[in-house]
Amino acid sequence: MIALHRGFYILKIEGEVTMQVRTSIGSYSIKIEDDFEGLLSSINELNKTYSKIVIISDENVADIYKNKILEVLEGIGIEIFFIAFLSGEKNKNIDTVSSIYEKLIEYKTDRNSLILALGGGVVGDIAGFVAATYMRGIDYIQVPTSLIAQVDSSIGGKTGFNHSNKKNVVGSFYPPVLVYINVSALMTLDKRHFINGMAEVIKHAVIYDRKYLEYLKDNCSEIKNMEVNALKKAIRWSCEIKSDIVSKDEKDKGIRKVLNFGHSVGHAIESLLNYDLLHGECVSLGMTFASRLSFDLDGISQSDYEDIIGILKIYGLPVKVDKLDSSLIFKELYYDKKSSFDKIGIVCLEGLGEPCFRNDLDKNVILKALDSVINGD
Amino acid sequence: MIALHRGFYILKIEGEVTMQVRTSIGSYSIKIEDDFEGLLSSINELNKTYSKIVIISDENVADIYKNKILEVLEGIGIEIFFIAFLSGEKNKNIDTVSSIYEKLIEYKTDRNSLILALGGGVVGDIAGFVAATYMRGIDYIQVPTSLIAQVDSSIGGKTGFNHSNKKNVVGSFYPPVLVYINVSALMTLDKRHFINGMAEVIKHAVIYDRKYLEYLKDNCSEIKNMEVNALKKAIRWSCEIKSDIVSKDEKDKGIRKVLNFGHSVGHAIESLLNYDLLHGECVSLGMTFASRLSFDLDGISQSDYEDIIGILKIYGLPVKVDKLDSSLIFKELYYDKKSSFDKIGIVCLEGLGEPCFRNDLDKNVILKALDSVINGD
Repeated sequence: MIALHRGFYILKIEGEVTMQVRTSIGSYSIKIEDDFEGLLSSINELNKTYSKIVIISDENVADIYKNKILEVLEGIGIEIFFIAFLSGEKNKNIDTVSSIYEKLIEYKTDRNSLILALGGGVVGDIAGFVAATYMRGIDYIQVPTSLIAQVDSSIGGKTGFNHSNKKNVVGSFYPPVLVYINVSALMTLDKRHFINGMAEVIKHAVIYDRKYLEYLKDNCSEIKNMEVNALKKAIRWSCEIKSDIVSKDEKDKGIRKVLNFGHSVGHAIESLLNYDLLHGECVSLGMTFASRLSFDLDGISQSDYEDIIGILKIYGLPVKVDKLDSSLIFKELYYDKKSSFDKIGIVCLEGLGEPCFRNDLDKNVILKALDSVINGD
Repeated sequence: MIALHRGFYILKIEGEVTMQVRTSIGSYSIKIEDDFEGLLSSINELNKTYSKIVIISDENVADIYKNKILEVLEGIGIEIFFIAFLSGEKNKNIDTVSSIYEKLIEYKTDRNSLILALGGGVVGDIAGFVAATYMRGIDYIQVPTSLIAQVDSSIGGKTGFNHSNKKNVVGSFYPPVLVYINVSALMTLDKRHFINGMAEVIKHAVIYDRKYLEYLKDNCSEIKNMEVNALKKAIRWSCEIKSDIVSKDEKDKGIRKVLNFGHSVGHAIESLLNYDLLHGECVSLGMTFASRLSFDLDGISQSDYEDIIGILKIYGLPVKVDKLDSSLIFKELYYDKKSSFDKIGIVCLEGLGEPCFRNDLDKNVILKALDSVINGD
């Protein structure tokens, strides 16, 4: 067992709207704003001379924001191209990547071009991978429009896509040059996709900061009603936690593992159900599993366990899946990137805000916790 | 015009058979040997615990060396898998990459697995890209078996593949953990593929070291007859030059550009002829162009120009292509990774061993030099 974080996180968000993420090749800013208007000046502040901009998005997001973004960027003085692919996790695959490369070549995109990823987690992961690999790497900006992308996937430079039904099995670590978050973009999200993002928000609280968990509990109705101030505070809190972790461990060799809480089983369920459930919904199930496992292993008390399940429930996230067999999920865990030498690796809890990494667990212990997620007991 | 290197290179090869290449994440060794026997101990010297080894090769190389490599690695105590794809530059594409990912997933390859790239430049580039992107990057070893791979493509961490008929337009910078060169593997190369590699050898001499060019001229018949000592000296000399350059500029932002000498036009011709000519043959044509251009621009004297053309000829490399139109080649140059802001970038010469970078050239000047390669005057 490897302990990964202990105690509370010291929040720095008061008064700040821009944070810095450190990487091996410099650092980049996360800006949290209420609109897209500041995007042009934020690009200019990068102090780079770009030859052209290629915006990569999906069809749903393009319908809503394409015109707005083009309007904001008008007057930038260089050509802007727009690529939109079919929405959804099922299209986060090598065929989509291949068709984007083709478009980039058609538009004569060169080493001094800038990619702008406009959309949710799928868009960010795909556009980031394309930026990482087109001409061996060009600059890109993350402009996340979903909650899950704003608090999680746009920060930290993980890019990738699914292959042979294995989640994110291909990818790279490739940091953006800027993350520009427009909180008001969330207002166009449907309820299910908004709640989907809350799974990652709750994860940050569970693994890093008991006070944050209290905040999410106390402000549940405000956040569920998307009241801007309550929501913005949560987004800033999550971005602070995420950027603190990825700045300490860019390449996922140590503490960054904590962010995988709920994800090993989450990814397995996501693959097995062929992406019919959303990522956050699967992570909620995975967190239910990991919390149950932690309780079974005497890592957390029954009341902590019930607290975690309780908060997932009040936000309307699933804590039970009945379509699956625990042995099928177990088999799938071998493909998780945290597993190696045929040993399954799971992020567990020694307490709220105190994650640890276990790769010494008996098969039956894992199966028992999986059964409890399937049976809902 | 940007001067990139002046004067002679101080050779360090005497007595040394292992060199070090520096990268942003550490350094790796290049070992030059006469057989494959040292491969097992070289892997053990890396001091890493690998979960399994996946050898990636092409069908031609697999026919010759698969059994030998498996025999050498016998007793390593972990599972070994072997993947061989269809040989040739035409298969250096996203479909091959996709099918290798599938095999890796099937073999439960994990983050602690080791990839071994066994083959020529195409194998090294594809296997390196797969290693860079599978699970966001796993370790790999280059075991180059062609001359072009031994002196050039296996060193420096450039990986990639072709897309939409554009050469190496997708890729990454991802260093191997070891380059293991078995010079005797060249003995199974056919004459055309051996001479193909001589284009990169001659390039090293032209851009970096006039003394090396003299050596290649004086030892032409020994090298063409593959006499081991003469050949080994050239390979060591080239490896020294290449590792010196890539250690100074891993990410191709400055001096590494010199290695692109002959490659802008070379890649254009390669694409336009749909890879019917080998890479080195196209680079030879590209060097003929760049030398002619340098002569036209008063960068080199007529006698230096004739010297370069002369050495390409005595090694049997082409200096004339009659199937193409200069305006077609010109158009293709915009897709070169060294071009940007719609300006074509070309590595020229201010003298033998004195390369410079030009992106200020008039279209007619380029077309005139292209015409001379097409007309052979």
